[in-house]
Amino acid sequence: MDNLLTGIKSTGRPHLGHVIGIISPTIFLINKEMFHKQFILIANLHTLTNYNFIKNNKTNSYKILAAWLACGLDYKKVICYRQSDIPEITELLWFFSAIFPYNRLKLVHSFKEYKTNNKIINTATLTYPILMAADILISKAEIILVGKDQLQHLEIARKIAKKINQIKRIFTIPKAKIFTKLIKGTDGKKMSKSKKNIIDIFSKKKQIKKQIFKIKTQNKFLNEENKLLTDNLYNIYLNFAGSKKIKKKLNVGYQHAKEEFYSFLISKFKKERKLYKYYINKKSKLEKILKIGATKMKEIIQPTMKQVRNVFDCS
Amino acid sequence: MDNLLTGIKSTGRPHLGHVIGIISPTIFLINKEMFHKQFILIANLHTLTNYNFIKNNKTNSYKILAAWLACGLDYKKVICYRQSDIPEITELLWFFSAIFPYNRLKLVHSFKEYKTNNKIINTATLTYPILMAADILISKAEIILVGKDQLQHLEIARKIAKKINQIKRIFTIPKAKIFTKLIKGTDGKKMSKSKKNIIDIFSKKKQIKKQIFKIKTQNKFLNEENKLLTDNLYNIYLNFAGSKKIKKKLNVGYQHAKEEFYSFLISKFKKERKLYKYYINKKSKLEKILKIGATKMKEIIQPTMKQVRNVFDCS
Repeated sequence: MDNLLTGIKSTGRPHLGHVIGIISPTIFLINKEMFHKQFILIANLHTLTNYNFIKNNKTNSYKILAAWLACGLDYKKVICYRQSDIPEITELLWFFSAIFPYNRLKLVHSFKEYKTNNKIINTATLTYPILMAADILISKAEIILVGKDQLQHLEIARKIAKKINQIKRIFTIPKAKIFTKLIKGTDGKKMSKSKKNIIDIFSKKKQIKKQIFKIKTQNKFLNEENKLLTDNLYNIYLNFAGSKKIKKKLNVGYQHAKEEFYSFLISKFKKERKLYKYYINKKSKLEKILKIGATKMKEIIQPTMKQVRNVFDCS
Repeated sequence: MDNLLTGIKSTGRPHLGHVIGIISPTIFLINKEMFHKQFILIANLHTLTNYNFIKNNKTNSYKILAAWLACGLDYKKVICYRQSDIPEITELLWFFSAIFPYNRLKLVHSFKEYKTNNKIINTATLTYPILMAADILISKAEIILVGKDQLQHLEIARKIAKKINQIKRIFTIPKAKIFTKLIKGTDGKKMSKSKKNIIDIFSKKKQIKKQIFKIKTQNKFLNEENKLLTDNLYNIYLNFAGSKKIKKKLNVGYQHAKEEFYSFLISKFKKERKLYKYYINKKSKLEKILKIGATKMKEIIQPTMKQVRNVFDCS
């Protein structure tokens, strides 16, 4: 039986894209009991590459965990941990840095994109994929749930694993499991906080309604099935409701359709929204869950860390 | 009272340049009881940037410690620790990477030199100065004993300290204390293992003699005082014996002078050579000393680490 790893960067309250694209599919897989171990990583060290996220790092990690719990994660079934609680990950960062060419890092898409849009590039923005390799390899998970945009990062982890395995067979060579659903945002592009196109499902109703009414639509509402597929609102709605149900309902004007979609979302996520509100106010409970996760993780990784330290002949 | 930090990269058995340039001056300063705390770092993570040093990393760390002890270091008076025993250093590497521009790293002399001479550059060769900043700042030492070639690295540590201190006043801004003696090798350049110009003072007598006889000399032996200063053998000898003593002796041919220098060295380092041989065979004693150092270090750094983690709002 394989192990599974899913990670979310702690950049704030998870939005609908996170819930539908990462959290729900992971919980679905966990409940199918297909995996031996399930690792849920709250990547709060990765967020530090963006100065703006430093200030609320702790709260943001809580928000990620609260969303997982609200969506039904049984933390006892998994190893759910916050990256900064496992300093062994940064220890691996140095070991891996010693054997991975720096020129390769400059070719990473996300780095090239960042370089185009920013004048000052901090070192962590360059070395980020090596930290991610450390995240991935330390878990020894065979299956890594990632978005398509992270396949290149996974490839770097595979390369590092193979290089070290040539010296001593330590690491599992991880495989990607790609999210099947790419969740589109209100502008039709991938839903992402940086693009300001999210539906903030755990926020206030008023806010959600506002975001739904921001969904870009075409001039005329389309009710023919094949044309419907090109419609943005239809596509977002489709992700949740299934085509049968909405085909009937969308044969109306856009405003009406948006109202429908809003009511649908609020009703569908009623329980999750209530639970999120409950957990986010229980900071000490969240902290306790993270501590339990860190303890489990530390125990699991000790044999691996010992082997890696041996490869580098360090204590 | 200030704190003092001295570090040696564990690239193998320390040579005469290490003993005269770093170890002896540090022990001299320690014995003067001028400092509050004295940190002696065995930098065995830095060596990993060179693949060739991975294999003997552990033994090489023992060699550094044995040399310190052989030269009279009282390990109880200092905090003598091996870098890889303090994973907090690599934790700082990530935090500092998040705030230090990567373009600045490309301007570091040692990186530029490495780039000229090597095709494949591993990431650690680039990020090395940030790890060194972590070494320096974690100790909160005011005075760092460094060679001139490391002033640029210290400047990076100072920059990082100032940047973090702007958020919260955590770090001491370290100052360099430059080794007064630049020890020349057998070719007249700075003594360095990579230049194959060392006098391997803890090796066998035969080896030392061979290396001394490799000292490049001029065609004619010079006995006029002002001309003597341009002579390589004279200059190396001068570092140890003082000018009065050797001026009398060097008024002879080069072969004779080299014999003289050899006898002088063997006699001067008789005790140190004997002690080195003793310690290097007591691996478990060395390991115990390193463990004591690591325990002391871990205790000292906890408040600092807590402050740094708070700045980055991580657990």
